[in-house]
Parts: sequence; C-alpha cells; structure tokens
Amino acid sequence: MALMTGKEYIESLRKMNMRVYMFGKKVENPVDDPILRPSVNSVRMTYDLATGTNPEYVNLMTAVSNLTGERVNRFTHIHQSTEDLVNKVKMQRLLGQVTAACFQRCVGMDAFNAVYSTTYEIDQKCGTNYHENFRKFVALCQEKDYTVDGAMTDPKGDRSLAPHKQDDPDMFLRVVERRPDGIVVRGAKAHQTGMCNSHHVLVMPTQAMGPDDKDYAVSFSCPCDAEGLFMIIGRQSCDTRKLEGTEIDVGNSQFGGVECLVVFDDVFIPNENIYMNGEYEFATMMVERFAGYHRQSYGGCKVGVGDVLIGASAVAADYNGVAKASHIKDKLIEMIHLNETMYSCGIACSAEGKKTASGNYLIDLLLANVCKQNVTRFPYEMARIAEDLAGGSVGTCLSEADLRGEFTGPWVEKYMKNGVGVSAENRMRILRLIENLSLGSGAVGYRTESLHGAGSPQAQRVMIARQGDIEGKKLLAKRIAHIKED
Amino acid sequence: MALMTGKEYIESLRKMNMRVYMFGKKVENPVDDPILRPSVNSVRMTYDLATGTNPEYVNLMTAVSNLTGERVNRFTHIHQSTEDLVNKVKMQRLLGQVTAACFQRCVGMDAFNAVYSTTYEIDQKCGTNYHENFRKFVALCQEKDYTVDGAMTDPKGDRSLAPHKQDDPDMFLRVVERRPDGIVVRGAKAHQTGMCNSHHVLVMPTQAMGPDDKDYAVSFSCPCDAEGLFMIIGRQSCDTRKLEGTEIDVGNSQFGGVECLVVFDDVFIPNENIYMNGEYEFATMMVERFAGYHRQSYGGCKVGVGDVLIGASAVAADYNGVAKASHIKDKLIEMIHLNETMYSCGIACSAEGKKTASGNYLIDLLLANVCKQNVTRFPYEMARIAEDLAGGSVGTCLSEADLRGEFTGPWVEKYMKNGVGVSAENRMRILRLIENLSLGSGAVGYRTESLHGAGSPQAQRVMIARQGDIEGKKLLAKRIAHIKED
Amino acid sequence: MALMTGKEYIESLRKMNMRVYMFGKKVENPVDDPILRPSVNSVRMTYDLATGTNPEYVNLMTAVSNLTGERVNRFTHIHQSTEDLVNKVKMQRLLGQVTAACFQRCVGMDAFNAVYSTTYEIDQKCGTNYHENFRKFVALCQEKDYTVDGAMTDPKGDRSLAPHKQDDPDMFLRVVERRPDGIVVRGAKAHQTGMCNSHHVLVMPTQAMGPDDKDYAVSFSCPCDAEGLFMIIGRQSCDTRKLEGTEIDVGNSQFGGVECLVVFDDVFIPNENIYMNGEYEFATMMVERFAGYHRQSYGGCKVGVGDVLIGASAVAADYNGVAKASHIKDKLIEMIHLNETMYSCGIACSAEGKKTASGNYLIDLLLANVCKQNVTRFPYEMARIAEDLAGGSVGTCLSEADLRGEFTGPWVEKYMKNGVGVSAENRMRILRLIENLSLGSGAVGYRTESLHGAGSPQAQRVMIARQGDIEGKKLLAKRIAHIKED
Amino acid sequence: MALMTGKEYIESLRKMNMRVYMFGKKVENPVDDPILRPSVNSVRMTYDLATGTNPEYVNLMTAVSNLTGERVNRFTHIHQSTEDLVNKVKMQRLLGQVTAACFQRCVGMDAFNAVYSTTYEIDQKCGTNYHENFRKFVALCQEKDYTVDGAMTDPKGDRSLAPHKQDDPDMFLRVVERRPDGIVVRGAKAHQTGMCNSHHVLVMPTQAMGPDDKDYAVSFSCPCDAEGLFMIIGRQSCDTRKLEGTEIDVGNSQFGGVECLVVFDDVFIPNENIYMNGEYEFATMMVERFAGYHRQSYGGCKVGVGDVLIGASAVAADYNGVAKASHIKDKLIEMIHLNETMYSCGIACSAEGKKTASGNYLIDLLLANVCKQNVTRFPYEMARIAEDLAGGSVGTCLSEADLRGEFTGPWVEKYMKNGVGVSAENRMRILRLIENLSLGSGAVGYRTESLHGAGSPQAQRVMIARQGDIEGKKLLAKRIAHIKED
Repeated sequence: MALMTGKEYIESLRKMNMRVYMFGKKVENPVDDPILRPSVNSVRMTYDLATGTNPEYVNLMTAVSNLTGERVNRFTHIHQSTEDLVNKVKMQRLLGQVTAACFQRCVGMDAFNAVYSTTYEIDQKCGTNYHENFRKFVALCQEKDYTVDGAMTDPKGDRSLAPHKQDDPDMFLRVVERRPDGIVVRGAKAHQTGMCNSHHVLVMPTQAMGPDDKDYAVSFSCPCDAEGLFMIIGRQSCDTRKLEGTEIDVGNSQFGGVECLVVFDDVFIPNENIYMNGEYEFATMMVERFAGYHRQSYGGCKVGVGDVLIGASAVAADYNGVAKASHIKDKLIEMIHLNETMYSCGIACSAEGKKTASGNYLIDLLLANVCKQNVTRFPYEMARIAEDLAGGSVGTCLSEADLRGEFTGPWVEKYMKNGVGVSAENRMRILRLIENLSLGSGAVGYRTESLHGAGSPQAQRVMIARQGDIEGKKLLAKRIAHIKED
Repeated sequence: MALMTGKEYIESLRKMNMRVYMFGKKVENPVDDPILRPSVNSVRMTYDLATGTNPEYVNLMTAVSNLTGERVNRFTHIHQSTEDLVNKVKMQRLLGQVTAACFQRCVGMDAFNAVYSTTYEIDQKCGTNYHENFRKFVALCQEKDYTVDGAMTDPKGDRSLAPHKQDDPDMFLRVVERRPDGIVVRGAKAHQTGMCNSHHVLVMPTQAMGPDDKDYAVSFSCPCDAEGLFMIIGRQSCDTRKLEGTEIDVGNSQFGGVECLVVFDDVFIPNENIYMNGEYEFATMMVERFAGYHRQSYGGCKVGVGDVLIGASAVAADYNGVAKASHIKDKLIEMIHLNETMYSCGIACSAEGKKTASGNYLIDLLLANVCKQNVTRFPYEMARIAEDLAGGSVGTCLSEADLRGEFTGPWVEKYMKNGVGVSAENRMRILRLIENLSLGSGAVGYRTESLHGAGSPQAQRVMIARQGDIEGKKLLAKRIAHIKED
Repeated sequence: MALMTGKEYIESLRKMNMRVYMFGKKVENPVDDPILRPSVNSVRMTYDLATGTNPEYVNLMTAVSNLTGERVNRFTHIHQSTEDLVNKVKMQRLLGQVTAACFQRCVGMDAFNAVYSTTYEIDQKCGTNYHENFRKFVALCQEKDYTVDGAMTDPKGDRSLAPHKQDDPDMFLRVVERRPDGIVVRGAKAHQTGMCNSHHVLVMPTQAMGPDDKDYAVSFSCPCDAEGLFMIIGRQSCDTRKLEGTEIDVGNSQFGGVECLVVFDDVFIPNENIYMNGEYEFATMMVERFAGYHRQSYGGCKVGVGDVLIGASAVAADYNGVAKASHIKDKLIEMIHLNETMYSCGIACSAEGKKTASGNYLIDLLLANVCKQNVTRFPYEMARIAEDLAGGSVGTCLSEADLRGEFTGPWVEKYMKNGVGVSAENRMRILRLIENLSLGSGAVGYRTESLHGAGSPQAQRVMIARQGDIEGKKLLAKRIAHIKED
Repeated sequence: MALMTGKEYIESLRKMNMRVYMFGKKVENPVDDPILRPSVNSVRMTYDLATGTNPEYVNLMTAVSNLTGERVNRFTHIHQSTEDLVNKVKMQRLLGQVTAACFQRCVGMDAFNAVYSTTYEIDQKCGTNYHENFRKFVALCQEKDYTVDGAMTDPKGDRSLAPHKQDDPDMFLRVVERRPDGIVVRGAKAHQTGMCNSHHVLVMPTQAMGPDDKDYAVSFSCPCDAEGLFMIIGRQSCDTRKLEGTEIDVGNSQFGGVECLVVFDDVFIPNENIYMNGEYEFATMMVERFAGYHRQSYGGCKVGVGDVLIGASAVAADYNGVAKASHIKDKLIEMIHLNETMYSCGIACSAEGKKTASGNYLIDLLLANVCKQNVTRFPYEMARIAEDLAGGSVGTCLSEADLRGEFTGPWVEKYMKNGVGVSAENRMRILRLIENLSLGSGAVGYRTESLHGAGSPQAQRVMIARQGDIEGKKLLAKRIAHIKED
C-alpha cells in the first residue's frame, strides 16, 4: 500500500536528519518546534484526508498512478486527464478550507508534472535519459508517499545580468564539479515553503538561459537531509506568538506554513537523480510549465483559505449583531464573488488543459496566468473587507493573558462580550483568526505569497502578452472595420 | 437535412408577415431596412458558419440532437454533456469575434434548455404534459433550423408589488382567456433582442410568483407573425447613421443588434404550444435556470466582442506610432486579462455543470452568476482603456463626408493621416470601430446589455448570496478558531 | 461696462465671418445650425450667469481685472490669489450643473493665465516684449468680453519624431514666413472645443522643443475669422439626432459642445499678437502651465456635469420605484463620493496655488495632475453606475416618434409608464438624459474628453513622477529604517 | 512659555501615576516599557518639532492661542481660520513622515475643537455654562502643553439597541451618581490610541441619543491617572518583537502607536470639568463635528506615513536593481497618485471650512467624510503595491539573529545581498520597514486604523448620503431634461 497516514508521516520526518537554522541557531527537533509544528500539521492533513474515513475526500485526495497502477496520493500523481487537473484544484480548495494555511505539498506536485513532460522532450531532442530517471524518482515518491519540495527561485543577485555574468557566481545554483557518478552543486533557493517538512527536494532552474549559462541549467532531486544541504527559516509576522503557549492569540493555533532559504553547500547528486544538466534551451520550458501549474494551484488553495476568511467575517458580523445590515451582506457577497472568480480561473485553465508529448496533461497557460494575476489582487481586497466586517477590535483586541488575568479577566469579559449572547472569548477567537489572515502569520501565506508565489504580478503579465494572440485580435478588428492595408 | 444556409435563412424571414414599428411607423420590409439589416446579418452568421467550408467552425456550430438523432445547429440543441456546455461558450466567443455584435440567437437556446428541464419537473409533480409538448416544439425548431427569441422581461409596473397587485393588470404578461383548444394572452415583453429576426418566440415568466399570480405563471411559444403580436423597435445610440449610406462612420457597417418591445395584444396560443399554465411554484425554477444559462452566455459572446475591441485598440496604437510604449503594452495586457477572466468564468460554470432530472445539462449556478457579475464590470473598464489607447481622435474624428468632400477631403487626408505610413481613411475606420463599441450602437450591446442583459447586477448578487453557502463557511472558520458555542 | 449679455454674445457671433465645414460642406450660418447651436448655448451661459439677476452667481462669475480695474467676466480674468483659483473651480462646477455639457470657455481662460506668466519669464530672460503684447490682448478681451479658444494640440504625425524631423513639416503648426510686420503660420490644431463659438484663438506650442524646432515654438492670437483660417467639425455620437427636431431623444436638447480641426492655411499674424517666436526653451513651461490649469479645470466642470448625472440617476431610481432599496442608495453614495473626490482635488490644487514671477497665481502642479488623473477614471465608473441605476430601458428606450405615433403612442404610454404615477414621457426624458451622458453626444464631453482633454492619462503620470519627489521620500524611509549607505 | 520640549514631556509622564495593564499584568513603568515606548516617542515628536531649531517646522507646529494670546502647540489650538485647518493637515503629514506611525495627539486636538463649538451652542440653547468650563480647560492644556486623549467609542453591546436598552447598562459610559460638586461616571472607551501617553482624557458620547439616554449624554475631562481609571493595552501584530532587543526585525525601531481599552470604574468628575450632562439632543452635533475633524486628520497623518511607504518601496526597488523597469516606475506613480488624492481631500475640506457660532472653524463635513472614505481604501492598495515592489523577500526575510549568527551570518550576507552593491543588512532593513507597515505593528496604524479610525467606512457613507444634497441634484437633472411633474 502506497499511502502513509498522518501519524506515519510525522514518524518518517523524525527519522530524518535535517539541518534547520532559526534565529541564528540550529533547531534540534524541527518536528516538535512550536514555530515549525503548525507547518508540519498542514502537510499532515494531506496524508490524513487521503487515508481517512470520508470516502468523498479519499477519492479527491488520491488517484491511480500511471507508473505503478497503484492508488497514490494525488500530490504525487502525474495528471492523466483534464479531470485530474480539475480534481487537483478541488483538492487544494478542500485543504485550504481545513487548514486556513499553506499546506506546502503543491509545489512538489507541480514540479513533478513540469519535469515529467520537459524531460521527455529533452530526451527526444538530445538523446538523454532524464525522463526514465525521473519516472523512477516519481515512482519511488509514490511508493513511499513522500512529500517533495519543488525548488526554483534563486537569489538572483543583479537582476539585469545573466547567471554567468554575476559577480558572485553562486547567485544562481550551479554545477561546480562533474564526476563520473554525478555532479556537485552549489547555490541556494529562496522562499521555499515546506522544505523542512519534506523528504526530498526537486530543483529546477529559475529562468531562461543562454549557451554560457550551461552550468546553471540543472535539474535534480536529493533528500532534504543530504550532506551539504541546510536551511535557514525566514521569520513571519507574529511568528513568536506561537512560543507563548496560548491558543487564542495565534488565531490559527493548529496550522500554518513557513518559508526558508535552502543552501546547497556543495551537494553531491548521483547521475540517476539528474533531470537536466546543461540543456539550457529547455530551461524556459521547464520554468513556464512549472509556473503554469503553480499559477493554477493558487486558484484552488487560496480560494479554500478565502472560504475560511469569508466564514470568519460572517461570524464576526454575527457576533457584532450587525449581520442583517444590507451593507454587511453586500460585503460578504463581494468576498464570495471575488473568491469564486479566482476559483473559476483555476477550474477553467484545468478544463482547457491539453496533453503533452509525454502523455501527462498541461493546464492552459494563458488562463493559468490570468488565474494567478487575479490572485495577486483579490485576496488583498478580501482581507480589507474582512477587516471592515470584523470592526475596529480586530486591531485593538486584548490578549488571552488579559482574558485569563486575575484582575483584568472580569473586565475583558465585561467589555469584550457583546449584547447578543456571545462570550468575550469567542469574539476574541474570531477576531484573532481574521488578524491571523490579514496581518499575522497567516497573512504571509494569504497575502504576500498570493502576490509573489509562482511569480510576481509582472511575470504573469509578460506571459499574458505572449499568450494573448494580439496579432490575431488585430485581424479580427481589421476585418470588421473593412481595413485594407497595402 | 436540418441545417439552413444564411441565404435560406434570409429567404425564410421574407416569407413572414411580422408587424414591426419604428419611429412611430410600420416598417414595410424589416429584412432590408438599413437600421434592422445589420441585426439580421449577425443572426445570419449563425447559419453561415454552421454550413460553411471551415470544418472547425462546423463542428463547433452543430451538434447531434438527442431528439432527432440528426446534426442540428447548436443554437437549437439540448445540451447533453458538460462538453456541450463548454462548446456553447466557445461558439459564442467565435460569433462575437466575427460580428463584434450581439448575434441574438443565444436567448432562444438558453430558453430551450431552461424550459426543457423545468417542464420535465412540472410534469413529474403535476402530471401535466408540458415536456412532451416542448420536445415536439424543439424538434420542429431543429428540423426547420428556426431562430427562436426567448422572452422573459415584463414591463413590471410598480416593482414593489406582485403581478396580481398592479393597478394595470397587464404590467406582467398573463392569460386573459382560457378556451378548450388553448389560451389567449395579453401583455408585453421588453428589451427583446433579435425578435424581429426570429421565427418563433418562447415566452417565460419573469420572476417568482405566488398562488394569486397563477394567470401570470405562463410559458408558451408562437410564431413571430402571430395575430395580435407586434413589435416596436427601441432606438440606439447612433442608430440613424446607418441611414446615411456611408461605411466608415458606422464603425461596424455589416453587423449589429436591435432591441424591441413586443406586445401581445390578445394572442391565441394552442394547447400544444403551452409549457406552463398556472404552476406558479415552478416560475422561480424556470427563471433561475434561464438566467443561469444566459449568464453563462455572456462569458462567451462578450469575450468575443472584447477580442475585437482589444484588436482595434492595438491597431489604433500601431496607427498612432506608439505601440512600443510600455504603458500601451500594459494596457493591452490588462484588457486581455479582464477578457480572459470573464471567459474563465464562462468555461468554469460549464465544466462544472450537472445533469438535470430531464437529462440535459445545467451550468453551475453560482459560477454562472459570478461570470455575469464580472461582465457587468469589465467591458466598461475595457471600453475605457480602448478609448485611452485610441487617443483623443476617437471623440473628435471627422466624418466620412469630410474625407470625401471636394474641399475638405485633402485637408482630412493631410491632418488625419499619421507619419508612420497609415492613411487617414484607415485611421478613421479603426477609430470609428472603437467609437461604435464604446459610445455608438455597438456600445448598447457591449456595455449596456452587459450590465442589464440576463439580469441587472443586483440580481446576480442575490443569487450569489443564496448559492454561496455562507453557513458552511462559518463552520470552517469556527473549526479553525476552535470556537465552541452553546 | 465690460460685460456682454448672452444675447449680445449671440449677436457678436453673427457679425463674424467664420469658415466652418461639416459633413464635407460649408455651414452657412453656424450660429443657428441645429448641430452647433447647443454648443453656442453652453458658452452663452457664461454670459447670462455673469449678467443675470442672481447676485451669488454674478459674484462667482466675475472678478476685478488687475489690468483695467474693471469688473470682468472671470473667464477673461488673470488669477490674483488662491481665492481666485478656488472660485474658478466653483464657477466651473456651477456651469457644469446648469449645462450638463462642456461650456468651452475654460480653455481660453487657462491659456490666458499660462501665457501671461510665461511671456513675463521669456521677456525677463530674452529681453523680448511679449508680456506687454499679451497684457494688451487680455485687456482687449476683457473690455470686449471675448470668448477665446486656447489651441494647443497639433496633429503630431509620427509621435516618435521631433517637429522638425517629420516627413510632412506641417504636422506641427509653424512659422513659414517672417515679415517686418509679423509672421505667416501654417499647420493645424486638433480637438478644438468651442472654436466656432469663439471670437479669437490663442495658439500655443504642444510639447517640449529643441533648438531645431524654433519655427514650431510659436504662440500668438488671431480672430477666428482671420483669412486663411477654417474649421472642420468632428462628428460626435448621436450628432444627427439634433436634426430630427425632437426634444426627448437628444437627452439634453439645449446644451452641448462640439470639437473641430482648425486649419491655419498660411495665416498672417501681426507682431503685436505674437507671444513666443522661436524661444523653444520656454515651450515646456507654457505647455506645463496650460496643462496644469486645464487639469485643475476638470476638477470643476466635470464635477458639475457629474452632479446632473447623479441627479438623473436618482430620478430614474425614483421613477423605477426602487429608490429605497439599499443597493440603490449605496450606488448613489458611491457616485457622490467619486464626484466629490474629484472636486476635492480641484479645490486642493487651487488652495495650494503659488504666485508666479509675473504676479498671477499658478495651481499646485502635482495636485492638478492628480486631479486630472482621477478625472480619467471616475466619470467612467459614474457612467457605469448611472446606467445600472437607470435600468435596462436606458439601452432600449423607444423613440419620441413612437410616443407621438398614432398607433404606437398609446402602447408606449401603457408599457413605458410605471406603476408609481410617472408618465412614460418623463421616464423617457430621464433615460435619454442618462443615455446622452453615458453613450450619446454628451458622453463625448463627459467621458472621452475627461480621458484625453488637457492630456491623456499617461501625460499626467509623467508629471506625477516628475513632481512627486521620490528622492525625498526615499530619504524619509531610510531615516526610519536607520539605513546608512557608504 | 507654554511649550514643553520632548524631554520635558517625558519627565511629565514619569510624574503621573497611571494604571496600565498589559498581558494581564500591571505595567510598573509605562514610560520605559519596550512595547509602549515607541508610542511615547511618536508623541514626543509633537513636542520636539515644536521646540526645535527648524523654523519652518516650528511655524507649522505652533499657533497663537485665541484664549491666551500665547504661542501654543498647534495640537492644543482652537482653529481660527481655514489657514489653521490647512496647517493642521500639513503638520500631520509632516509628523507622519518623521514617525511612520500614529502620533496620537490629533484625537485630543479634534476633540478640543468639536467640544469647543458644541458647548457654545449648548449654552446658547440651554443656559448652561459648559463653554466657559471648556475654555478654561483648553487654556490650561495650552499653558501646560498637555497631551489630551479624546475618547469617544463605547463597547456598545447590542448595536441594535439604544444605550438605555442594553442588558448591561455599562455598555455605554454613563453617569451613575450626581453630587453637588460633580458626577461619578462608569463605563469604558475602546480603541484609545495614545491614552497611556496623555495627561488628560476628554470624553464625548459616541452616537445620537434620545430622551431616555440622558445619563449617557455626558462629556467631561479628567487626568489619566484619576482614581478609578485604568487601561488595558491591546496587542498588535508583532508587538513582542519589540521585546527582543533587536533593531532590524521591528522595522521601525523608534516609533509606533498603541491602543487600549480605558475603564472608568466610578470616576469622580468635578463640575468645572463637565461639558455636557444630559443634553442628549446635542450628542449628534458633538459626534459629527469630532468625527468630521478626525476624518480630516486622516488626510494628513496617513499621507505622511504613505510618503515613507512610497520611499521604502522605491528604495527596495533600487536595492533589487529593478528601479528602471517601466512597470516599477508606474507602480510608484500609482502610489503617489493615491497618496496625493487623499491629501487633496484633506486640504479641500480644510480650505472649504466655515466659522462656527463659537468662532472656531469647522471643516466642510461632506468633503471630510469623502476624505476618510478614500483613506479606508487607498492605504490598502498602497500596501499591496509596496509588497509587490519589495519582492517576495518581504515575506520570507531572515532574522537579525540569523544575520548576527556565527554560522548563519556569512550565509545571510551572501544570499540576501544583491549584485548592485547593497548589503544584506540594508536590504533587510528596508524589507522590515515595509513589513512593519503592511503586516507588522505599523500596519495596525496604517491599515486597520485607516479603515476604522474616526468611524468605519459605512459611517462615512451615511454622512455622504446626508450631506450630498441628492434632492438638489435631482432638480438639476429635471431642469436639463425639461421634466415637468404635476
């Protein structure tokens, strides 16, 4: 059986020997660290729902592998149809709904599918053997039910220069040594969500490359506790609240996400785990396909988190006793409208997907970029409306310690309750959840990541220009206007 | 063979004896009237593309009937799958691209599918025979390849009162007499696009109704030249330019759309053409399904027109010699982004469609309403950007008569050309096309109809509230926040 | 007495011998032409209100001249204080409210004030005598109460090339001959509103110029019936409705605005009417100041028209019987909010005005550009909301001929009335007014001119970048962040 | 001399005996508490700039008192002209620029001016002596240069019920005992910024009241360390970072703002400090005037903070090496445009101010509400753009501890620097400043307070509806449309 339970997943992480740094120090037990644990819990949900008792969830969370014929976790699946693409989005919405956080495992799934089809096309043209290597790696991940981190973004240095032109040659990850049995790589990948909860990392180049960038045109995988590899955890808004041991003030006490910088300090990669090694002309294809899949993803996961934010806003309005005011209802409608617009884009780019040469399915690239472009806007407006509906107390809410304080407690109870039968504690809980998603640690995932994850807004605009067939549209207009040009 | 050519369609219209009034007078020959003809040409395109030489178009424009087994025009088809729903949207985008106008035949297709499933459910509950009646009518329309106008909107009178409470009982269309062989109906339907280009009209009630509104809960069809039925054509922006006999100034000289008020001045309807007659409790279902299908439609047709507007804006930028300016490119990207967002919504509500009890497919109602809500906003912003890209001359462009004038002609040539090898005439043609869609007769279809067609913005918001499952979202939030209520 | 009445103004126009072409033909009597007359009526209002019986209006409409000491029409006034600048905006709002159209006389007022201060600075640097020339011209205009058209925009040809580099040297207006007593000019000015209702035209260069563009760096005035000067009238949306002799269908039967192309086919300008002649380094100053004043103007005039549109929307909602619906009220509030935001920008750039070297007052350039930038957006959104509030009938309204038709009349009365005691005629009147401003001839002034008048959106953005002191803002941020750079 | 220096201000706070609770415990030394101190520093700036060496600042920061004839801090001034109102806004922008935070003292200034004019009108009608009481209090505050907290917002309980109808009668602050020498008050005021940095608090009622709410219609002042009065500090996003003793991670290490709940647990108020006591019919006037002044304030302070955010975004773009990209420049322009639009509204409502019966100047209420309404929207969009310009590292930035860590430090230096000569530290500093304002403790002031401070968005919309003269606008429209009604 290829599926792990959540409990087994946690145990599997404990067996790893990852080097994780935070606040300048090594974290001895990342799995149980109070700042990192909510992030582990989010990934765990991808296991729990796939092995749980709800058959509706299990069907959505799993698929039959084209490689092994076994039922595998959909996060390790190679999409075989547009239905698979649509189900991916629905699975992501579901997980967003139950975690209200980034559950991190999508980036590996999206990398799987991008590398799968690109290696096939490299092999076709270059006579290499990357696709077979990669199929074996995927089959292993399916068999072991591994969580894999897809790693793309390099530090980049001077953005106006190509990789090989940088003062510091390590600004893009590169091959520093070639051996008969493999390669040695050096560099770093930034903004990695979920890396410290993953079993393996799958590395891809970050942008288009030229002939002189061959050493930078590299794709491979390795275990997250490989020698020479370590991570430094980025700090999020309100991160240390998780150290306080309270439940209310963190807003979402169980789930979260973290990001880190991953450093490859001369890591050896054996030949069988290499999926690109110098074929620079395929860097763009791999990047665009990964980015395309990942831009689709945002039409699912952030919509699920948005569902929680809408619900929280509606509860806050109930608790404030104003739920029947027409402007309140209208603001909730606007939130739903924006949320479902993003979802529509996620569904549409999936339903319009096409088969690649390798046999897996690729989303419609234009619509996937349109999807992500909307995600760079709407969660911000939704967070604004949520803060509006929450009322001013979302910014001035007293602490759980005040609620529990001997002297302060009764006063908090008195003046933070409201007159419609709601306790101060419940009001504080919902206000803190909204704060979590609009200002707190959840906001890093819900807002900032919506902006920059899978590429910043301008990256999508470049793709929309390229995919939007402006020349074809000009012909339509000239035909209607009866324009004849010489 | 069930398919008419465009030419045969025109001939079929000539054989009808419709009563059409315009500017207070009867129009003797509606088919050849210069104000009405562009509207006929738009509908004609639905025939030409279905019977043309481009097999790609023919496949999209036709489908195999579930009633007759024959290949029929998709505009008369009962949707048998989500693929049918998706293809409907693609067909509409295609027709928008080639007409840059409203091609009017969708309203009948949408009415077909709404009445088809609703009559089935009425019969199931009430033991009536409407569904069989209706299947025969649809089969006839498929066989004859009829264009059918779907008619819903009543004049409404005082909107705060139910139909039976109005001072003037005719403010909603109603049954005024019941005979053994049929009924006599009286009233009017407003905002009818394409009625004067249609063979039959299919009437539906316009809103939810109560027990006292039984006479108003009526659905039927009749020929557009039935006795007692006549139309008065509404006037559009720039309508009389079509009488000037020029080509440039109208912007879109070949295609257009018109709207009219249809009056039913005691029209007799035989029993076999009655599809609802007093079953008031099904009025809401018929209205919501028709509105749902028609809100989906806007995610196709207006996107196609938008493609033309984007193309025209790009041509105008070329002609102004500024196409390479980054702000120009960015504005075109924004237009494409907005347009494809609407399209995504059209595709998504189709791909997420579900089978009804009657066997045909219904779009996802929530997403269809979200689709239309975006259509009430984005074409306006796209028209604004188009005017921006066109430059000030879109508002001050000289007339074709000036271009042709003996004295003025050379001056127009000199000062309306530009320095990049474009003739004054071609600049004027593209400016007039943009004017047509942003201010002129095309703007009635592209802007105003986008706002109010298939229901004004607030109508969608009511549906979004109803379909948005706010209670379920509250539960999600309470679970994350660990809220327990007594 | 320096003030003309409206009647005297009309008579003064009749005495002129202007060459006006329209639809390829010479207009024999421009003052009484049904297409041009509404435009004359709008300008006339600037006279009527200044000489009327309402002392509040008279105070706003007039000022005491710094040149003559006499009370003059404010449209001919050289601003002497920030109070004058504020009153200018209030006067413009008033005229927008009473005409719902462009009243055209602002462009001359704005040109007066830009040329006044620029000529002073040219003389200071170059030892020329332009300022004295110009003071005399202004004094004459004040004495005679002339309407003056300010003319700036050249046809421009290839926009990527300087004036002297154009294939056709006439793409920018230029001096073609220099004589002892004056100069001969050739070229054209586009988008001239109100030229055919003006006594004189005041010409300015249209952009920054270099040493080789000296012949193009020219500013002067001449009568509108000068030899060699003629105009071709641009055609607007719905222009020919004014020829139908009806009142309802035009929406605004009394007032309007028109634009034209003015051709200078070798016009002689005597020395005393020359205000720049080769001092290319002052072209930018004149352009930026004129544009600045004119961008301020839009914070008054369009706000006044917006007041009418808001009122019309509120009346339409009343007539539809839905005025009490909360979403209707909210949309009216949004219209007011947008309108008053534009007004605030108009007031603010005035209140923050500064004295120039010449002694007159210049608006704050940054805020004036911000003002206009908002005007390129908000009227479009206001028009969209207005169409929403109007209901679908704004696009399908029957004609006045239908209302008056023997057969159709009673049916129009029956089905276009509503149930709350409003006549079909009054509903049609308000719908047509909204159509006029959102799609019809008024929309050219309210929408397109808001976008491009006084410079297209990008022109303001360039100025905002230049005036926004980004470097100073960087210092603020570095101070807060305690950043020290080497 | 009436002006304190910043140092004297700090000393004056130390002499007070305020009861401040935080995290459930009493804060022994609020002045030096690391969480509260940045808030003190912000207020201190209002003293430092008023007594500093920059004469330009001193002129803006001070004014000549109408009560004492002495030069006083403008924050204690009763506005004597529209110039005073404009200067208030400019002073606020200046302070926003130098603190990038809420400097808290505005609320007292706004309360001063609202209570000043309202007490005058109460006395006129009711024969009371409140105005004289209040003049003495203001004169004292001017003489001592006190910081005064204006307190309005009650906990409110069930918002659908009037104060006297609440289950818990203390949900609105009220008089519980009347004595010959004064009154005893009980209740609480929520969302009080700056209370723990203030010398006195000036209490006002929070909404319109009826005859049965007399005990709730109360206005008075008392020292912040009065017996029975205590505060509980609300917790903000990232509040405890200030306890870490680092400088970079807090983003703005020197300045901030805090909010608290103030409890009046039976506080005695002597007669001379009472300014309303039962005159319920004046509650609305006091509320609307205070809200009006305070909505004006946001057009100054948040604009100043916005200047810092724009600057920080520009620095981040510089540091990322992308400052010349056209989309980057355009986004900075958009930020400036939005910021200056808010400023324009602040200036406009000031310049259009009017004298009250008491002699001080009141802003234009319509424009002040329009101002605040924009402030509920634009800072959110500006924060979104700032995060866009900052790049993904704004969400994943490593900690100062990582930068200082023995092992991690060199890696952070290597991979968080960029290739254009910027140190990792400086990049981190600017990223943390942007995080502070978009997600961190500064975001509570910049975003949430912009939304809810001085009234939530809907409160302004109610006022815009009331002040927008819709009836007058209807008349304008009917006149243009020539509508005659019976």
